[in-house]
Amino acid sequence: MPDSLAELAKHLRQFNADRDWHQFHSPKNLASALVVEAAELLEHFQWLTEAESRDLPPEKRTAVGAEVADVLLYLIQLADALGIDPIAAAQSKLQTNAQKYPVERARGTSRKYDEL
Amino acid sequence: MPDSLAELAKHLRQFNADRDWHQFHSPKNLASALVVEAAELLEHFQWLTEAESRDLPPEKRTAVGAEVADVLLYLIQLADALGIDPIAAAQSKLQTNAQKYPVERARGTSRKYDEL
Amino acid sequence: MPDSLAELAKHLRQFNADRDWHQFHSPKNLASALVVEAAELLEHFQWLTEAESRDLPPEKRTAVGAEVADVLLYLIQLADALGIDPIAAAQSKLQTNAQKYPVERARGTSRKYDEL
Amino acid sequence: MPDSLAELAKHLRQFNADRDWHQFHSPKNLASALVVEAAELLEHFQWLTEAESRDLPPEKRTAVGAEVADVLLYLIQLADALGIDPIAAAQSKLQTNAQKYPVERARGTSRKYDEL
Repeated sequence: MPDSLAELAKHLRQFNADRDWHQFHSPKNLASALVVEAAELLEHFQWLTEAESRDLPPEKRTAVGAEVADVLLYLIQLADALGIDPIAAAQSKLQTNAQKYPVERARGTSRKYDEL
Repeated sequence: MPDSLAELAKHLRQFNADRDWHQFHSPKNLASALVVEAAELLEHFQWLTEAESRDLPPEKRTAVGAEVADVLLYLIQLADALGIDPIAAAQSKLQTNAQKYPVERARGTSRKYDEL
Repeated sequence: MPDSLAELAKHLRQFNADRDWHQFHSPKNLASALVVEAAELLEHFQWLTEAESRDLPPEKRTAVGAEVADVLLYLIQLADALGIDPIAAAQSKLQTNAQKYPVERARGTSRKYDEL
Repeated sequence: MPDSLAELAKHLRQFNADRDWHQFHSPKNLASALVVEAAELLEHFQWLTEAESRDLPPEKRTAVGAEVADVLLYLIQLADALGIDPIAAAQSKLQTNAQKYPVERARGTSRKYDEL
């Protein structure tokens, strides 16, 4: 089984080619599908308290795991369609965030960087 | 720099601990943040045609890459908070999808598995 | 000023015609814009506790009001583009919900109707 | 049946009071539910072309109407919980938009106001 984002991307490319799905997988459509899956994930939490969300029963955790997978798979396909390396993009964003949220000013607050 | 989902998760755990952000990062809140970032990604495509979305100018592609990173980073944090392995969840979903969408019936159609 | 959904729909139709925006306002695109605005609304709440969200400071409440407006305006345009009467659709849904969630079984629980 | 946003808000207040649902209906939770419903609406369009979305078959249009209702009903409840008048908020936003998008500059382009 594919065990990295790059391997998953390769697998999905073949999966979609086999089904002639490239025609449907414009970045615009994949971005829509990504939001739809992210919202299905959120649906599991919408009426829970934060405390309940930190302590899911096993069957709920499994269901949430399936939604995590859906989000990840569409994200990989979208990035692949655009020639974006998600790991490199994440690394770059980590550096940005470290600058935007210095420890001494960001500690213990959820404010956005422009309100710190 | 961290170069896998597992390494990114570890890095983010430390980043958040340094800022005492665990209190804000309930799965419920992380799921909201994930949808918000996915929607920011979609915003780049909302008025584009599908053809335009397949051919982004470089500066737009860079901006989209930053949103891809935001989605991935929240997804990693959410999965980490719940003890979910995103790669394993994705592998499991790939098997499900292969069964739900057999090549001969799914080829060339965007219908859902229950309408094939 | 327009003071009902029907009047707002009429106003928006003219607003868009004046700008030749009909070409961009396919239902597909309007549905994307609707989600994007709904997520901007959610962004205001993502790190708040539920208690904090029930007691917004005035300037935050104003900002949220502007997002409520954005969601409503896109919803009106989408319904108008599809020939859907939102009030009639809401009335129909109220009847469905009354059947799905009878008082005696739904009281005090956030479970979905199929789990009551 | 209630036939305006104000009447719908009143009806929903009673509906929720009868079921003791106020405890779940924090603005934070209602904002999540709103996004979830908006995404369910988008799901109907995600693989359609724009042209197809302008010409829905009747049963699809009915299904979309039910989602329009869900979005509207949560929007009304969220606004009601925050003491926001959605029609007044929409009127205010119409004025803002008229200033941000003057006809002569906005005609025929989907660019944002800060890029006109």
